[in-house]
Amino acid sequence: MKKPVEKKRSAKKKRSASPAKQHIALAKTVSSRKSKAQLRHLSWNQVEREVLTPLLERQLIVGQEVMLARILLRKGCVVPWHSHVNEQLSAILEGALKFWIDGKEIIVRSGEVLTIPPNMPHKAEALEDTLAIDTFHPPRADWINKTDSYLRK
Amino acid sequence: MKKPVEKKRSAKKKRSASPAKQHIALAKTVSSRKSKAQLRHLSWNQVEREVLTPLLERQLIVGQEVMLARILLRKGCVVPWHSHVNEQLSAILEGALKFWIDGKEIIVRSGEVLTIPPNMPHKAEALEDTLAIDTFHPPRADWINKTDSYLRK
Repeated sequence: MKKPVEKKRSAKKKRSASPAKQHIALAKTVSSRKSKAQLRHLSWNQVEREVLTPLLERQLIVGQEVMLARILLRKGCVVPWHSHVNEQLSAILEGALKFWIDGKEIIVRSGEVLTIPPNMPHKAEALEDTLAIDTFHPPRADWINKTDSYLRK
Repeated sequence: MKKPVEKKRSAKKKRSASPAKQHIALAKTVSSRKSKAQLRHLSWNQVEREVLTPLLERQLIVGQEVMLARILLRKGCVVPWHSHVNEQLSAILEGALKFWIDGKEIIVRSGEVLTIPPNMPHKAEALEDTLAIDTFHPPRADWINKTDSYLRK
């Protein structure tokens, strides 16, 4: 009875993990030090525009428990497989963003929203130049601290 | 020495409270039962459009810890003085919304965001037909349960 068990194990080892299982489970995406909630009047035009790659730009408005990120993804920009404990609501204002998530492929277009639960691995690719507002709870500490190397390749 | 003290008290009684102090401190804006975070792909076109008054319409996308509200305020719409424990980020997409808040008058225009801390009384008036996306943490239970009578007058 020993050999069949070994064979089974061997077969299991050879089977490669799915991309969703190979995702980066991001660490330190929640800060122990929260920003203080305060009254602020901001224009997106005046918020720092961070260029992560030639295809990816980002601006942040950070509250105490919630954060808005205005993201420009040029056509062909790929956000690799990752997950985070932060709840995410991804609202597309212009363009089209294709997600691979929960075994599905979902194209989110202008006027549409994808709600992503905590710890759900996902990947995305911009099918067109895309403008999105992502809302996170709690704020993404790795984005605030710029320790998000998975996005900067 | 008694009379001057009485006079002082009397004067204090006659002084009317400022509108900010007369605001409705909304109760039950946080639900004890949270929605479960789940993967959902939604179009604003398919989300129920709730008509609160002839000047005010609203749509909600409710996550577990965060809620998006897409709000149409026609010119002249007034949101009366109120406060809530929910943190609020108010993003104006079209038009102009004037806020009275923290002793200031602030006009928030298209492309701008106002971050409102918990429990800060505020009033608003649409100076033009205005489209806003309000983000709340936690989700506004009074909006979900439709117990927001202060908005329906």
